[in-house]
Amino acid sequence: MTPAGSAGAAAYARAAARFHRIAVLGEASAMLGWDAAAMMPEGGAAARGEQFAVLAGLGHGLLTEPALAEDLEAASAAEPWAAANLALMRHARVRAVALPADLVEAQARANAACETVWREARRAADFARVRPRLETVVRLVREQAAALAGALGLSPYDALMDGYQRGIGAADVAPIFDRYEAFLATALPAAEEHQASRPPPRPIPGPFPVPAQEALCRRLAARVGLDFAHARLDRSAHPFCGGTPADVRITTRYDEADFAKAVLAVLHETGHALYERGLPPDHARQPVGEAAGMAVHESQSLIIEMQACRTDAFLGWLGPQLHAAFGGAADVYGPANLALLWRRVERGFIRVDADELTYPAHVILRFRLEQALIGGDLAVADLPGAWNDGIHALLGIIPADDAQGCLQDIHWYDGGFGYFPSYTLGAMAAAQLMAAARQQTPGLDAALGQGDLAPLRAWLGAHVHAQGSRLGFNDLLRAATGKALDVADFEAHLRARYLPS
Amino acid sequence: MTPAGSAGAAAYARAAARFHRIAVLGEASAMLGWDAAAMMPEGGAAARGEQFAVLAGLGHGLLTEPALAEDLEAASAAEPWAAANLALMRHARVRAVALPADLVEAQARANAACETVWREARRAADFARVRPRLETVVRLVREQAAALAGALGLSPYDALMDGYQRGIGAADVAPIFDRYEAFLATALPAAEEHQASRPPPRPIPGPFPVPAQEALCRRLAARVGLDFAHARLDRSAHPFCGGTPADVRITTRYDEADFAKAVLAVLHETGHALYERGLPPDHARQPVGEAAGMAVHESQSLIIEMQACRTDAFLGWLGPQLHAAFGGAADVYGPANLALLWRRVERGFIRVDADELTYPAHVILRFRLEQALIGGDLAVADLPGAWNDGIHALLGIIPADDAQGCLQDIHWYDGGFGYFPSYTLGAMAAAQLMAAARQQTPGLDAALGQGDLAPLRAWLGAHVHAQGSRLGFNDLLRAATGKALDVADFEAHLRARYLPS
Repeated sequence: MTPAGSAGAAAYARAAARFHRIAVLGEASAMLGWDAAAMMPEGGAAARGEQFAVLAGLGHGLLTEPALAEDLEAASAAEPWAAANLALMRHARVRAVALPADLVEAQARANAACETVWREARRAADFARVRPRLETVVRLVREQAAALAGALGLSPYDALMDGYQRGIGAADVAPIFDRYEAFLATALPAAEEHQASRPPPRPIPGPFPVPAQEALCRRLAARVGLDFAHARLDRSAHPFCGGTPADVRITTRYDEADFAKAVLAVLHETGHALYERGLPPDHARQPVGEAAGMAVHESQSLIIEMQACRTDAFLGWLGPQLHAAFGGAADVYGPANLALLWRRVERGFIRVDADELTYPAHVILRFRLEQALIGGDLAVADLPGAWNDGIHALLGIIPADDAQGCLQDIHWYDGGFGYFPSYTLGAMAAAQLMAAARQQTPGLDAALGQGDLAPLRAWLGAHVHAQGSRLGFNDLLRAATGKALDVADFEAHLRARYLPS
Repeated sequence: MTPAGSAGAAAYARAAARFHRIAVLGEASAMLGWDAAAMMPEGGAAARGEQFAVLAGLGHGLLTEPALAEDLEAASAAEPWAAANLALMRHARVRAVALPADLVEAQARANAACETVWREARRAADFARVRPRLETVVRLVREQAAALAGALGLSPYDALMDGYQRGIGAADVAPIFDRYEAFLATALPAAEEHQASRPPPRPIPGPFPVPAQEALCRRLAARVGLDFAHARLDRSAHPFCGGTPADVRITTRYDEADFAKAVLAVLHETGHALYERGLPPDHARQPVGEAAGMAVHESQSLIIEMQACRTDAFLGWLGPQLHAAFGGAADVYGPANLALLWRRVERGFIRVDADELTYPAHVILRFRLEQALIGGDLAVADLPGAWNDGIHALLGIIPADDAQGCLQDIHWYDGGFGYFPSYTLGAMAAAQLMAAARQQTPGLDAALGQGDLAPLRAWLGAHVHAQGSRLGFNDLLRAATGKALDVADFEAHLRARYLPS
């Protein structure tokens, strides 16, 4: 190795050591975030907020110190993982230094203030109440997007998307979403007609005691592949997956009248958890060892919850487990009835309650509206009308008020623009990955019929989890499935599941 | 204000902002420490160890950066709390920079290695197995003590003590411990004779279901004054009080055969928790706003557990609570029987199992031996013999093996020298504070008879908790009780409780 190479390696090692510290600060915040949602007494909130702020500030400080710029400039790495890591380190620093400190502060204040008012406005279904706050948030997000765009060489909207999912932009997404809109226009009425031709699902009579639900959820998560020597399952107001790869924390909530909410949420969060657990340990606490982005993460939760666990095969195994946990008549736990219960299509107003088929319509609407807001083509004052027009065009329904419309989601009111596409990109990627896994893995579905996800897990482990952040969204799909995101697999999945054969 | 004064104030503010960040790193570590003991799956241990190390390293880095030295040199503060805070900031920095980085690393490695071997050695009652490791630990601690002593202007042993409790040194402690030894020589036989003249306690028949114990412990902690909007009670292998002042976490363990272990541990930890909760919020996350040291902390747990909650008055209130929780015959829950059960004197080998009267003997032995080890007057090889001679001189008993002797406590094997006196200084301070509180607070004991600790809590809140770290150990006692540590109050307490009236 030449002296220059040796200096480059030393600079790389210094930068990597710094990112290791940044990652540990992130791990501490992640554990405190889990604690805040699952454990913390309410009186701890203010102190916890300060802890998050200081830990984030320390991490930001490590990322923006001039010494890192020098190391990243001087660093060299030939080995492919190290080269990818170096590129990601540089990318992270570019994002961090692109934003002036006073903008970051102004956004933190504006987002927090807007989110507080949004909670009242949503309760009162009164958009006017939060409109001025949202106008401030949008104005600052446009500044943020412009600053990031210049630094990254991306469009402003893509620069925001890049913060959540690297390797795909609006120019890729827009035609895919347009195609889905056209697909939905015929598939949704057909699915509704098919559904109407079948008997309605028979409800499963409760109540379902929480301890029995919790024990079942734990058994199911373990069966799906979660190792509880490195994981916990607790309760929180909204299910999530937190913690760290070595110690992943999933949560759910329990409704004594309906066990399905807890069970399906745990299957979903277990998908996220398996991804974290499967990240490459050799690259732990380096950018390249992290999950590849929010859309890829969502693909991993949905491939477990939607693709694998709602198949006829898995439901056939699951029914007797549910019956054993809760008792009562056996027939309502049959796979046919579970399928009728858990695969219903319905045109609804609320994204988080939507089924697989209509969910993308909610995301397509938001994707278009947030692009218009960031691009300056839509004024905040015109958002409610544009929302109602958009959801009517997509689903043929009009919300009775803005609580059912543009006030329903926290994202924009907390400054989060560019995130929404991740949900549907994840759903589409899940279908594409599942198709490839099936093709490459004989016996995958037979194993699902035994409640055995090992074949699917092994494939995902190799093709997604162990890849860390080495590849962006479309490159990861290309390596795993032979092609960039292709909505055809998702459409085929939906056709097979919701339309007459 | 002169320009110089203004520059001094600005330098003070910068230093305080830095200590705020250091404190938040400590809070994050504290919450992760609680999690590790109470929540973490076993597979998370390695990652957690790395998190602790990195957070500690970041805090150490903030403390040792040259910029802080400049600020502390230039800083000025006239207001008494700020002046005390500035002195404590300087003190913390002196301690941090006194130790060479390679010594800190060598100690971390040697302590961890010794502790691991100690666990095996204790199990096998085989001191020889751990002796070489302990020799290394002691050699490094002597280097540490010498470095700190030079920087602080203290003797080497006092420099170690100072790390746990500021404001009292071996020259103060030695005569107090000598006097206690003399007191014990007559008080212990007299107490044993008095005890033998009374009926033995009647055991309370169990089992005591854990959920009932846990509910009772929660009610008792709340009754004693813990606000569960800012606290949690959980389980861990060893009871402790962790977390932060705004969000304090206490733990206990449950034995279905004996509820007393859990109940008394919760009362003890609640005393610690009340101290943390009562620290001055205006000085949160500054050195002056922290607890005043480990001996003061122990005084606050013992004043609740031993001084207040084992009085006849409180036991008279507690008995019916216990009976309501566990049922069975009422008479064994009478205060007289509870007193016989929970105030037994016994010459034993194990410090953590010792009663109030003999506990100081265990500490006096360790205090003398660790001074001799640090001073070079005792070789590690001679420790078992010196231990057995010492415990025989103090309590008239000789351990059957070293597991019952010099291998019983983790402290030394983990590099912890200078901590042991805190236990007994705390017990003595608790008695002294209780005597002063009684004298200044009419109705304190009558309230205890109603299970009401509000009068005691109010006195402790004003005289101890709200004082933060403004005063060292003896100055705090002087301000609260009119005198430095005086063993007479502890002796009077023990005489009243254990000797014939």
